[in-house]
Amino acid sequence: MAGGVGSRFWPMSTPECPKQFIDVFGTGRTFIQMTVDRFKGVVPPENIWVVTSEKYSGIVKAQLPDIPVSNVLLEPCRRNTAPCIAYVSWRIKAKNPKANIVVAPSDHLVTDVVEFQRVINSALQFVSETDSIVTLGMKPTRPETGYGYIEANLQEPSLRNQEIFRVESFKEKPDLAKAKDYIQNKAFYWNSGIFVWNVRTIINALRIYLPDVNDIFENMLSVYGTDKEQEMINSEFPKCENISIDYAVLEKADEIFVFPANFGWSDVGTWGSLHTLAEADSAGNNVIGQNVRLYETRNCVIHTTQERRVVVQGLDGYIVAEKDNTLLICKLAEEQRIKEFSAE
Amino acid sequence: MAGGVGSRFWPMSTPECPKQFIDVFGTGRTFIQMTVDRFKGVVPPENIWVVTSEKYSGIVKAQLPDIPVSNVLLEPCRRNTAPCIAYVSWRIKAKNPKANIVVAPSDHLVTDVVEFQRVINSALQFVSETDSIVTLGMKPTRPETGYGYIEANLQEPSLRNQEIFRVESFKEKPDLAKAKDYIQNKAFYWNSGIFVWNVRTIINALRIYLPDVNDIFENMLSVYGTDKEQEMINSEFPKCENISIDYAVLEKADEIFVFPANFGWSDVGTWGSLHTLAEADSAGNNVIGQNVRLYETRNCVIHTTQERRVVVQGLDGYIVAEKDNTLLICKLAEEQRIKEFSAE
Repeated sequence: MAGGVGSRFWPMSTPECPKQFIDVFGTGRTFIQMTVDRFKGVVPPENIWVVTSEKYSGIVKAQLPDIPVSNVLLEPCRRNTAPCIAYVSWRIKAKNPKANIVVAPSDHLVTDVVEFQRVINSALQFVSETDSIVTLGMKPTRPETGYGYIEANLQEPSLRNQEIFRVESFKEKPDLAKAKDYIQNKAFYWNSGIFVWNVRTIINALRIYLPDVNDIFENMLSVYGTDKEQEMINSEFPKCENISIDYAVLEKADEIFVFPANFGWSDVGTWGSLHTLAEADSAGNNVIGQNVRLYETRNCVIHTTQERRVVVQGLDGYIVAEKDNTLLICKLAEEQRIKEFSAE
Repeated sequence: MAGGVGSRFWPMSTPECPKQFIDVFGTGRTFIQMTVDRFKGVVPPENIWVVTSEKYSGIVKAQLPDIPVSNVLLEPCRRNTAPCIAYVSWRIKAKNPKANIVVAPSDHLVTDVVEFQRVINSALQFVSETDSIVTLGMKPTRPETGYGYIEANLQEPSLRNQEIFRVESFKEKPDLAKAKDYIQNKAFYWNSGIFVWNVRTIINALRIYLPDVNDIFENMLSVYGTDKEQEMINSEFPKCENISIDYAVLEKADEIFVFPANFGWSDVGTWGSLHTLAEADSAGNNVIGQNVRLYETRNCVIHTTQERRVVVQGLDGYIVAEKDNTLLICKLAEEQRIKEFSAE
């Protein structure tokens, strides 16, 4: 899933080139490239599908040259995750009705890829044998209010896989007090937004819980892979309800399981999380940029492009982010206002 | 005089395009253009001479199209003000041995141009009748430690011009304690670096007090205005002693006068002085740039170029200056370190 706009990372992330297409850590690989890299040896490139906005098709093809152009699906507008998943599920079903599927956001970070692959392979094995919906639950490390939580029924491990448990309930993004309670409870996990299932299961679920959206894509079976596909999608996709897969399906369906895992995951949703995750100097600064000099500066995130020269003196706890013709200087503590700051 | 490098205004001022060639106030006129504008009606363009570095000849000709190209003198290297003044004095003498001359830096601000012109005309009249060296002394408004001071002998106004007094002594840039004493004393004025004299007077003074430098330019009389001039200057100018006209002549010569004046002068030598002089918003911010948005920001100087978008939140008392590929963020109180910050 690569249709997001990453507005919380402005100005580094812009509507023209959002977060998933950016080398946030200065490693030379963008989020979407790291996401694809993560599946090397698990899924061959020809089985990787990218669903993104039509305006990002050029970026996707440039950043992921190994993925067949026909596997890049283009949404004419944003309709949240449920229509996105319905579309690609039908495309996959048309090719392989027995497919097992991992649904993953393209703008998350995973630091332990070996463990990630072990978990994914184990979950794929599980869904190949059962009609289960598996969500990956992340062991919480802090009372994060920016994530949804999953409550597992730890008394009921699956018989087929002792690492997988029934979901007791899904929890909305909590306030800090609730979040602190949640992380005291061993049964609570962060909802990573990574799902594993087989194509029959998700499509059955869509037929039951989101029939109108499902029909739109089921009725297009004859045009998938033809010249008519994009034209039809452009006319039909906007008719889809704007709804997340969590609301539409997961919170309603039975046979929902959670696979608690711990592979160094973050959605890197904010400058603050980048500040936490990226390598910091001895003064607690994350500096991304080749020509940055700091004096009496602490706990800052400095993010600039290669060609720019930056000198910062006397800042503590700020974001200094610069891209193209835009500069943002703001307190890390105020970053939730970046949408306001970035408004034209 | 337009050979300075304006290093205290980095990154707005760079060795490639220093302060005198920059529209610091966003008025559409650069310092050197304002300096020339200031003499409209006093000196015709063909009598205005610019002495600058050879690498700025293109900028000068572009910014001052009305000044004859032959009046733009190019120094092959920096030798402070004495050689600069010796060179242009001989060039002027070759054209008009009776010329009266105003020597002015090209990177100062004058807010009351009417009073400036009255003072200049009065001083020119005075030096046309006497062999005097006149310096313009500025009424101090604060204990500035960045300026030199002139002590006038207020008991001895000139008979020819009651506004002009003999100089008692020149004072180096003082420390704050001294500066506070100075401004208590009615006889002390800031040394503006603006001088008025006739060409005979300055050349006689150079012959006496700086003979080696004087000889270099006197010996070139035959090549001035010819193809050979630049070539000769390039080989001879570097031989000049690196010395200011203040040390070389003013502090030694007799017949030195000061014309106390008050026409809203500043050398705008620092970001802090720009902060004091430029128009500020209600929060005390000076903003130069078309697309700058401030939130909870006070007492800052924000200086950017037209095409750039800048959002600043939560800064108090900082310089945010951006030009080409360079960004500086530093406390106004630390601006004396800008040379350190700008070092490659």
